[in-house]
Amino acid sequence: MADSQTTSERPHIAAKRYIYAWGGGTAEGNGNMKDLLGGKGAGLAEMTLAGLPTPPGFTITTVACNDYFSAGKQLPDGLWQDVLDAMKEVEARAAKRFGDPANPLLVSVRSGAKFSMPGMMDTVLNLGLNEATLQGLIALTGNERFGWDAYRRFISMFGRIVMEVRAERFDEPLEHAKAKHGAGAKDTDLTVDDLKALVEVYKGVVRADTGREFPTDPYEQLDLAIKAVFGSWFGKRATDYRNSQKIPHDLGTAVNVVTMVFGNMGDDSGTGVAFTRNTFDGRNELYGEYLTNAQGEDVVAGIRTPEKIAHLQDQMPEAYEEFVKIGHLLEQHYKDVQDLEFTIERGRLYMLQTRTAKRTAEAAVKIAVQMVGEGLISKREAVARIEPSQVDQLLRRQFDRNALGASKSIVGGLNASPGAAVGRAVFDADLAVEWQARGEKVLLVRVETSPDDFHGMAIAEGILTARGGATSHAAVVARQIGKPCVAGCSDLLVDYGSRTARSITSGESFKEGDWISVDGNTGKVYVGALPTVDAKYEDQPELQTILGWADEIRRLGVWTNADKPGEAAQARAWGAQGIGLCRTEHMFREGDRLEIVREAILVANVATRAKAKRAAGAELSADEAAAVATFDAAMAKLEKLQQGDFEGIFEAMDGLPVVIRLIDPPLHEFLPNLEEQLVKVTRAEASGGASEEDRQLLATIKSMHEQNPMLGLRGCRLGIMIPDFVKIQTRAIINAQVVRRRAGGNPISKIMIPLVGHVNELRATRHLLQTEADAIAAAASDVKVDYKFGTMIEIPRGALTADEIATEASFFSFGTNDLTQMTFGYSRDDAEGGFLLKYVEDKILPVNPFQTLDDAVAGLMKIAVDKGRSTRPDLELGICGEHGGDPESIHKCERIGLDYVSCSPFRVPVARLAAAQAVLATQHDK
Amino acid sequence: MADSQTTSERPHIAAKRYIYAWGGGTAEGNGNMKDLLGGKGAGLAEMTLAGLPTPPGFTITTVACNDYFSAGKQLPDGLWQDVLDAMKEVEARAAKRFGDPANPLLVSVRSGAKFSMPGMMDTVLNLGLNEATLQGLIALTGNERFGWDAYRRFISMFGRIVMEVRAERFDEPLEHAKAKHGAGAKDTDLTVDDLKALVEVYKGVVRADTGREFPTDPYEQLDLAIKAVFGSWFGKRATDYRNSQKIPHDLGTAVNVVTMVFGNMGDDSGTGVAFTRNTFDGRNELYGEYLTNAQGEDVVAGIRTPEKIAHLQDQMPEAYEEFVKIGHLLEQHYKDVQDLEFTIERGRLYMLQTRTAKRTAEAAVKIAVQMVGEGLISKREAVARIEPSQVDQLLRRQFDRNALGASKSIVGGLNASPGAAVGRAVFDADLAVEWQARGEKVLLVRVETSPDDFHGMAIAEGILTARGGATSHAAVVARQIGKPCVAGCSDLLVDYGSRTARSITSGESFKEGDWISVDGNTGKVYVGALPTVDAKYEDQPELQTILGWADEIRRLGVWTNADKPGEAAQARAWGAQGIGLCRTEHMFREGDRLEIVREAILVANVATRAKAKRAAGAELSADEAAAVATFDAAMAKLEKLQQGDFEGIFEAMDGLPVVIRLIDPPLHEFLPNLEEQLVKVTRAEASGGASEEDRQLLATIKSMHEQNPMLGLRGCRLGIMIPDFVKIQTRAIINAQVVRRRAGGNPISKIMIPLVGHVNELRATRHLLQTEADAIAAAASDVKVDYKFGTMIEIPRGALTADEIATEASFFSFGTNDLTQMTFGYSRDDAEGGFLLKYVEDKILPVNPFQTLDDAVAGLMKIAVDKGRSTRPDLELGICGEHGGDPESIHKCERIGLDYVSCSPFRVPVARLAAAQAVLATQHDK
Repeated sequence: MADSQTTSERPHIAAKRYIYAWGGGTAEGNGNMKDLLGGKGAGLAEMTLAGLPTPPGFTITTVACNDYFSAGKQLPDGLWQDVLDAMKEVEARAAKRFGDPANPLLVSVRSGAKFSMPGMMDTVLNLGLNEATLQGLIALTGNERFGWDAYRRFISMFGRIVMEVRAERFDEPLEHAKAKHGAGAKDTDLTVDDLKALVEVYKGVVRADTGREFPTDPYEQLDLAIKAVFGSWFGKRATDYRNSQKIPHDLGTAVNVVTMVFGNMGDDSGTGVAFTRNTFDGRNELYGEYLTNAQGEDVVAGIRTPEKIAHLQDQMPEAYEEFVKIGHLLEQHYKDVQDLEFTIERGRLYMLQTRTAKRTAEAAVKIAVQMVGEGLISKREAVARIEPSQVDQLLRRQFDRNALGASKSIVGGLNASPGAAVGRAVFDADLAVEWQARGEKVLLVRVETSPDDFHGMAIAEGILTARGGATSHAAVVARQIGKPCVAGCSDLLVDYGSRTARSITSGESFKEGDWISVDGNTGKVYVGALPTVDAKYEDQPELQTILGWADEIRRLGVWTNADKPGEAAQARAWGAQGIGLCRTEHMFREGDRLEIVREAILVANVATRAKAKRAAGAELSADEAAAVATFDAAMAKLEKLQQGDFEGIFEAMDGLPVVIRLIDPPLHEFLPNLEEQLVKVTRAEASGGASEEDRQLLATIKSMHEQNPMLGLRGCRLGIMIPDFVKIQTRAIINAQVVRRRAGGNPISKIMIPLVGHVNELRATRHLLQTEADAIAAAASDVKVDYKFGTMIEIPRGALTADEIATEASFFSFGTNDLTQMTFGYSRDDAEGGFLLKYVEDKILPVNPFQTLDDAVAGLMKIAVDKGRSTRPDLELGICGEHGGDPESIHKCERIGLDYVSCSPFRVPVARLAAAQAVLATQHDK
Repeated sequence: MADSQTTSERPHIAAKRYIYAWGGGTAEGNGNMKDLLGGKGAGLAEMTLAGLPTPPGFTITTVACNDYFSAGKQLPDGLWQDVLDAMKEVEARAAKRFGDPANPLLVSVRSGAKFSMPGMMDTVLNLGLNEATLQGLIALTGNERFGWDAYRRFISMFGRIVMEVRAERFDEPLEHAKAKHGAGAKDTDLTVDDLKALVEVYKGVVRADTGREFPTDPYEQLDLAIKAVFGSWFGKRATDYRNSQKIPHDLGTAVNVVTMVFGNMGDDSGTGVAFTRNTFDGRNELYGEYLTNAQGEDVVAGIRTPEKIAHLQDQMPEAYEEFVKIGHLLEQHYKDVQDLEFTIERGRLYMLQTRTAKRTAEAAVKIAVQMVGEGLISKREAVARIEPSQVDQLLRRQFDRNALGASKSIVGGLNASPGAAVGRAVFDADLAVEWQARGEKVLLVRVETSPDDFHGMAIAEGILTARGGATSHAAVVARQIGKPCVAGCSDLLVDYGSRTARSITSGESFKEGDWISVDGNTGKVYVGALPTVDAKYEDQPELQTILGWADEIRRLGVWTNADKPGEAAQARAWGAQGIGLCRTEHMFREGDRLEIVREAILVANVATRAKAKRAAGAELSADEAAAVATFDAAMAKLEKLQQGDFEGIFEAMDGLPVVIRLIDPPLHEFLPNLEEQLVKVTRAEASGGASEEDRQLLATIKSMHEQNPMLGLRGCRLGIMIPDFVKIQTRAIINAQVVRRRAGGNPISKIMIPLVGHVNELRATRHLLQTEADAIAAAASDVKVDYKFGTMIEIPRGALTADEIATEASFFSFGTNDLTQMTFGYSRDDAEGGFLLKYVEDKILPVNPFQTLDDAVAGLMKIAVDKGRSTRPDLELGICGEHGGDPESIHKCERIGLDYVSCSPFRVPVARLAAAQAVLATQHDK
């Protein structure tokens, strides 16, 4: 059944319309048909319609690809007849005939999916050549060398892609042939005889490796090539790439059959790739490279060094002028920077491809701001175009650009985890740990990594592997632990025996102990220690402009998780609108405070029970009285110190809300590690006896030891068992508020009670603390004292009973780290170094749920939001788990209807952008 | 506004109708008005209406009580005037006048709530006495001693209850007066002069302790007594009792003002308490006690030894005959055994109270079966009447009845946790642990317990405390850990100094190390080691009858959790209809298997990775090959052993479903404890060096150590990481099935994959195992091989995504232990010995959620049930957590709509009853 919306001159045999042709100024498809025609096919149709010079051809649709697989790798009925008809049309438009020795038409057969998958899919050029048509080509061009070169290229490309002969089988004879012309000889040095000889060798290789002759019938070549391109959709590389980029597997690829034009027909010919603006630094200038007398693949392959596109103006001024005009036209048409492929055949310009250009983070931001200035796009479009990861990248430490410009990378691989890493190469994890322990910066280099290498990865500056894709162990772990990583440098030969690594291509190498630099943003690896620079928000006005626009669009507030005044000020400068999580216990570890905290903990239980006894009217023993005195003295010191902390935070965030979470972790976290103390005491006892103090300490640690501390005595449970900790914290908060108000400040305090699973926990704690706060408020009648109580929703039961809990809480903050742990039943500490890796690798889980909010966890949050608002409509709702800084999770927070996200200071700019994009996405969905 | 549904002769002043009178054969209330009149008031009205002899009186309603508290402890407007009017009516019916020295009316003022709260609420007798009416009483009865005795009783009772004078202040002078008549003198030994002197002393005590004279105006006495009875509703004892029995606090108590009749007017008078059937062993005979010439309280107080009710037949045959007739009438009327209070005043019988009789478990079952036989009640009513805890009690080890009958308890307390415990008394927890460690059976005796005593409670046979109610630490912990406990023996003086405990009343004592016996069913404590007997289901035909009726009623299946053939057979005999949970790893610990399991674990990771490597075509190193060989050998042994286990289970459960859960716990549970191994190696190294084996073992244990093993590598995660464990288990199951089928059996296997949080975990595991099973099935073509796959829902995410998971599971079994842990964020191991105790004590949680299914957890299960059935309507749904044997939780399972509950063999009979009662409750709700 033909697509009724598209007119067609050709009759179609197949049940569906599988073919869309273009040429001669008309096209059956257009630029909006990327789903059906792929990016390349739609672009060629659109360019043709726009009157641009394109070589005639046709696209076989993505639907045909899917039907091919559905039919068990058979071309769907009628398709072949349609291909034959379409070829007739191309022949007419090109005024050549396929397989005609007198005037041969040659075509390229290229894949072209909806999303660009650079280097992942296959292309065959010069299809249609055989001994007979080769002679026609030579006769027509008068260039025997060109003809034989084209033929040799065709055989090797077809042999490799369609007939599955290994690439080395063609590369080795070629290298051999070049070698005869001396070291460093190029393929342009090959003579006609060399090429003729190579063709014979190649044919022999095909015969030897496949057991059949190289096909000479052009239509047989075409049939096989179409099937091979379809087949490459489910090739390993392509599948891995789609997984890493989250591209669905059911899109399929289109196949483009395009008349060959030749950039290698002499000095009035050439081929190149160019961007309509500088995609490296964002300047508004044509940016790209070309090669005179060369075919497309030569530019990419780096066999000859291409020239800058500007030089074309001198060499072929007319073609250049036309190309500039076309570039401008396409940019205006597509309203974005274009990535253009062109070929000049004997002075005549052909446009082979246009697509949206990939660009660096810096260029993306600058170009977006420029284009808004030019009136080309709206602010909303500008905001939508920036990847949150690009904002992240602009604020990370990175390599100095000048140094990068001056350096040549030894190898390149997959940019698996962003950032700049510099360290001394170490080839195994144990050694890495050893070197790091003695103060070295190390960079772990492995063929590939396994769970056994985790300890080395965890302490390395960065990771470099020779094997493995975007979802390899190295890549997944590196992203998880935030280390720069370049993975899958297939050009790198890592030899554990000699402790060296060598580029197979260039032969350059480094050995264990050498400094190397790894750029996780680009995937490039350098020998030597490249200088790095801090990226400053203040120095990036375009970034600030974009984020200002984002602020106008977004609905979600962006707050920050900060525990110290300096962090708070930093986050505020980056746009944070409040503190969503101030972890009071982080202050417990500073300086000499840990000693005070330990003093208190060692007597906490005895003192608390003694106090209850005293309150019930009983006498205390001398030991009990002493414990109470020690405990109270430590608590008083701690209260004073915490008050100072809060004064600083309130000052830094003056006028903005500050959510302070009361003590959360189990107390034994502040004591020495059980195993270490056990070894210490055991050793001491074996050699004369341990001190009473050490034995006592061991006994206390043991008594506080828990099977599963994550699920033990922490959060509000701690405050209920030992009320003094949360009492002094509350007093410190309220007294700090009094001090700040008296100083004319405007502190806004919100007290957050963590780990609530039952409304009664919150009610009891709130009652306890309100008494403390009210007493201070009554004493400080000269200033206004106000505060709100809220809770973290981080326990499934808390979410499930949010309607009850909301009656006692004026705000909820979703603690999605713990909520994810408990909803999944995962201990993050154990899982991330263990089975979770395998789960992500094996696709049992689509993503690491600690990085991106899981849908079931988000669903639980939605239950809590709805229930909470049902009993308290003005409930304030935020998130303070790490997901608050993750763009995809922020989208989910927008859909759930939270009021704000809170993230680390460092992620605030990213969150501002992501929050705006979440609004745009929601509007788009409607 | 008068209650329009009840006629009344008296005009009412109060805004509501607060008073319901009875007497002279008519009554304003009736037996159905327990809510308003309390049990006692409704009973008296009903008895009066039935023509039984009751002393005239009236009831002040529970509504008046609540209004009294609402008004800030003021009698509601108009109530007092109504009381005065009602008193006039009583005077007329009794033909006496209140405060009339010539013909004085005396009344009792008694509390009477909807639910019986024995001993918890207050009563004042002989109200209306003063110096003047006393003389009238003496003149009317001609008995001076009776008069003064009544007066002295009244002053002490009123003084204590209404005027809040401490009881000892009256007890001491009484003891002193009795002492004058020699050791062991009774209060009947007191002379008129003794009594007169006591009255003077009592009045002096009241004056000294309250600063006011004892009130002489009968109406003032009445006013104060009514308020005191109201007030006792919120007394500590009553409040604690209601909490323990889950009786709401807003019911309020009624107050009954009843004409005094005197059982102490000579040998033609008496008073007693009797049950219409034997409430101890269930025989159909009048069962009770009476005292000649005594007032009601004397029977209870144990001052004189009462006589068996049968003797009344000889002493007062007419009164006895009438009483027997009345008892029969009331039993027919109420269709249940009645607990009757009566007084005979000069030969005339008065019925003072009738209520449903409390009874032992044995009596409850026997009486219910009897009554069905008599046509008095239906089978459904019989089933509804048995408490599930009574079934439990009938199947627990208990004291030999003959020994119990022959023994006298030294003290009694609250039956806080059921069961019979025998051990040597130990007075502190540390010592208890020490004694127990050397092989002694210990019984922990404490004034009260605190969390510091937990280790002692955990190893004791039982617990006995002098202080604390049903929600005291001792009671809560004992129930939690399943130890018999008698708490709050206020008569027991525990002296830690002399290591003795003494009955204050009797002076009998025991010392540390003495054998004592504690009956948690009755609350009684005995000195000496009483013999215990096993309770056999087979020997209890009535119990079997009741449970047979329950089976006819219930909808839920009752399955069992059993790991061994013996257990399975036992449960089947008790009525189990399948195995809902067979924990395969329990078999791993038997005999020499642990060694095999350890062998496998030590090389599991290396071997698994080596196998993957080999599968990918790589060569193994010698070490790797050795690890694989060791691992495979251990696995093969284990497979064979497990197959034998399953054959046994299938045989025991032939024809019934058996749900086998694949390995669940983390592997390190099968290895030595980390701390112990650490100490061992550290010690060895300090003295010359540890063995390589020990060091290796320590390294392995460390590498497997997890921060939170509850949330770590266990359940299906383990099978995904190390597939061989679950593969061999599956093969063992299927091969066992083949063997049983060839033997003519009918094994029904269901394979349960635990800890599934994401459908992909189940899908991957199922795929892995199906391959194993299919291979065996293909080889054993002579028999039918069938099996189903299902999963445990025990992770919140599993419940939340049950619609997805159900696509891969033919059954769900709710693992509510883990589900509760993760939904609450509690580690049961840590919480139950720690904060959870305080939570239950402080009412932060209404119950221990590990004992009774929490409503939020049940809500999560309901989500899972609905979602699961939405994608698989025939999904089979059960529960295998411990809640499956808890009656209240079984009710929730009925409401959620599960198909079956599975519990320990021991709980199967309880569950059968509870499941039937759940149906009855649901029908009642409708």
